[in-house]
Amino acid sequence: MFTGTKIKAPFFEIGPKAYLYGSDVVDLALAADAAAQKYNVDVIFTAPYVSIEAVARATSHIHVFAPHMDPIKPGRGVADILPESLLAAGATGVLLNHNEKPLSLADLKHIIARADELGLATLACADSLAEAKAVACLAPNIIAAEPSELIGTGQVSDMAYVLESTRLIKEVDERIMVLQAAGISSGKDVFRVIRAGAEGTGSSSGIALAADRAAMVDEMVGAVRQAWDEYIKNS
Amino acid sequence: MFTGTKIKAPFFEIGPKAYLYGSDVVDLALAADAAAQKYNVDVIFTAPYVSIEAVARATSHIHVFAPHMDPIKPGRGVADILPESLLAAGATGVLLNHNEKPLSLADLKHIIARADELGLATLACADSLAEAKAVACLAPNIIAAEPSELIGTGQVSDMAYVLESTRLIKEVDERIMVLQAAGISSGKDVFRVIRAGAEGTGSSSGIALAADRAAMVDEMVGAVRQAWDEYIKNS
Amino acid sequence: MFTGTKIKAPFFEIGPKAYLYGSDVVDLALAADAAAQKYNVDVIFTAPYVSIEAVARATSHIHVFAPHMDPIKPGRGVADILPESLLAAGATGVLLNHNEKPLSLADLKHIIARADELGLATLACADSLAEAKAVACLAPNIIAAEPSELIGTGQVSDMAYVLESTRLIKEVDERIMVLQAAGISSGKDVFRVIRAGAEGTGSSSGIALAADRAAMVDEMVGAVRQAWDEYIKNS
Amino acid sequence: MFTGTKIKAPFFEIGPKAYLYGSDVVDLALAADAAAQKYNVDVIFTAPYVSIEAVARATSHIHVFAPHMDPIKPGRGVADILPESLLAAGATGVLLNHNEKPLSLADLKHIIARADELGLATLACADSLAEAKAVACLAPNIIAAEPSELIGTGQVSDMAYVLESTRLIKEVDERIMVLQAAGISSGKDVFRVIRAGAEGTGSSSGIALAADRAAMVDEMVGAVRQAWDEYIKNS
Repeated sequence: MFTGTKIKAPFFEIGPKAYLYGSDVVDLALAADAAAQKYNVDVIFTAPYVSIEAVARATSHIHVFAPHMDPIKPGRGVADILPESLLAAGATGVLLNHNEKPLSLADLKHIIARADELGLATLACADSLAEAKAVACLAPNIIAAEPSELIGTGQVSDMAYVLESTRLIKEVDERIMVLQAAGISSGKDVFRVIRAGAEGTGSSSGIALAADRAAMVDEMVGAVRQAWDEYIKNS
Repeated sequence: MFTGTKIKAPFFEIGPKAYLYGSDVVDLALAADAAAQKYNVDVIFTAPYVSIEAVARATSHIHVFAPHMDPIKPGRGVADILPESLLAAGATGVLLNHNEKPLSLADLKHIIARADELGLATLACADSLAEAKAVACLAPNIIAAEPSELIGTGQVSDMAYVLESTRLIKEVDERIMVLQAAGISSGKDVFRVIRAGAEGTGSSSGIALAADRAAMVDEMVGAVRQAWDEYIKNS
Repeated sequence: MFTGTKIKAPFFEIGPKAYLYGSDVVDLALAADAAAQKYNVDVIFTAPYVSIEAVARATSHIHVFAPHMDPIKPGRGVADILPESLLAAGATGVLLNHNEKPLSLADLKHIIARADELGLATLACADSLAEAKAVACLAPNIIAAEPSELIGTGQVSDMAYVLESTRLIKEVDERIMVLQAAGISSGKDVFRVIRAGAEGTGSSSGIALAADRAAMVDEMVGAVRQAWDEYIKNS
Repeated sequence: MFTGTKIKAPFFEIGPKAYLYGSDVVDLALAADAAAQKYNVDVIFTAPYVSIEAVARATSHIHVFAPHMDPIKPGRGVADILPESLLAAGATGVLLNHNEKPLSLADLKHIIARADELGLATLACADSLAEAKAVACLAPNIIAAEPSELIGTGQVSDMAYVLESTRLIKEVDERIMVLQAAGISSGKDVFRVIRAGAEGTGSSSGIALAADRAAMVDEMVGAVRQAWDEYIKNS
């Protein structure tokens, strides 16, 4: 685990995936940057590779993550993602093992090792309780515990899942932070999941497909702060 | 085939693969830009995804290519390469089916169709005579006919291979330009392969690992011009 | 191309895919064997790997094919399909590049080369006209020209597609036989596609999901013979 | 975890990979069968798919395993390995996540679930201590803890690795049996690794490439029994 990351609970992850591109990605990052500052919430922004540098240059409060990287060192690999290149572009972390980019255990382990070596934070996804525990054994900074059946459905993980996955992960390594994210499509969803005990949450299509993306980012990041302050902070 | 590409023979392709990253990629692109202007040679620069925008912004004479793209439309695909995003970043073409990123025939066909639709030039690789002919059936703008056994070895395709692969490709579609590239590590190699009848050539490790990369680019691009003017232009 | 194959037009391919297993596969093969003899039609039976030996042992008139093989020689590859092992199990050919098992151009070429070397017939799939032509450049014995959109839909390739794909393939290499197969679900479908000019056709789910599989095989293989004798034989 | 498996310590796994095919595989299985009976050792024989049925038919004392299976149910999947088909062919278990066939965490989890449902034992590979612990969270019957750097080298895992990996795995789930296998090439290697505390071990190239394979199987399986009786049984 890279112990130098500045990300702390409560946090919020935004990923435009391939829904957006070009200036729309940068505009969304600017909205995220503003909300991060306004609400004092750590915001992770997972940018498409080609937009990482532009997003990093345009913002100063968000944590810019890459959506994947390969377990390689400088050399061959014409279309591979070199970890060093992400750092040079301004990324400070990397998303791994998303269900749209599944990794073998061996690769996941090697990539986390490379990230630790270079000083990149790692956010690894797990689609079930058993996987969440398994991923915890590899010591990423954050685990996104998202039952894959819920992704994109508008259904939120229930409180029992939030509590149980958090417990299993912390039991393996209590330093790991837990993100609960499937199906977040409004500030209310965010509020509920933070109140249920998540240290962070996030949204992809819920923001990318919103009529007013900047307003939705503000609503969601604001809800993180509100739920945290009301229910978690002093508990 | 995207018929609007401005690339014409003689041309030269430079790909730093994952050998270089960050400012080294941009510096190499600047050297390529200077050589393209100085020798009036079309130079294709295949940049890592994260460097495409920086390279496109810094240069004005080279053709910036991506090293791959996925056959998707805007939507899901967290670590996929959206064709529209390449265009937005300043790319004007895409390298496909490199032996370090092999594609199925079906994907190669769909990606070329997407590139044609968006106005991106396509440079598709083929590792043998039979593959060169097969790829020609899919109508990319350029085919790189590189016997994969030679890549990175310092051995150049011989004249017989150059002539035969060019003949086979043009027989299928005479609009396709042919790049002969395996094993180019000096201006002399470039000279020989252009003199042998290639419309273009290129180098990856031969440049990325050179002691003075900018000087090597100048030497190679200069050799393209010299061989072309002496042997091909008026023939 | 392996020139020793005994398969000749008209022929019919049956593939239970993963719909059936165990004795159901052998029973289907026995029905295919009986129909092949009864109608004097070359029947290719693409058996799951684990059933190849049992199918080959139980039958004497059909051509037993594997659904794929890997481009390897004896050695490592714990879950790979060694070409030599297929021959030893009684297979006489191999299906390649099915849209459920797409291959890179380079692999397809190497696998066809291995099949030629060992004396295994090759049946390669192509999902569009451009792909059919491209695959023809690699010289398999048979090309299955199936627009992938139609597979499993019950819609048959129309006559224009049959004629055009056959023409394109024969133009590249007239020795290649052409199988037209998407969407065959009855003897009538078989009749139409053979009458339209296909040298062979086939069915997978149309047989595997039929209420009486043996009767469906008899109906379809009988239709091959009837259409061939009425429309093609003496033309 | 499938709780009905009859495999118990001490056990030995033999996998001819793609080194052998046809009657050589069956002959090796017969030697394994004889040694299993002679020494009363549980022997797992991981047969290539095409040989599973022949091996199962020819033997009566060994546990026949497949080298992989896919997380599918009966239906499409022309070259996929249907779990039900392995059972029908006589397999009683399946090897998973070998470093020559790496699986994503999600697939590994789904395949173990399918195996549990059907009553197939699972032997999952892990290439490092962290992976061994992670795989243990998915509850296979056996974990092969093989540092991948050693596979095929003739170097045996040292006692510290044996003890530490066993401890980590049992800590997660004490029902899981541990196989320590990298680099086993003689009866002495087997003796040492069982004496060091492994519940089982195994060999692939060490047997497949031996001058007298049957003799090597006898030597290795005999060494399992001897080391177990001398050092472990009454401890």
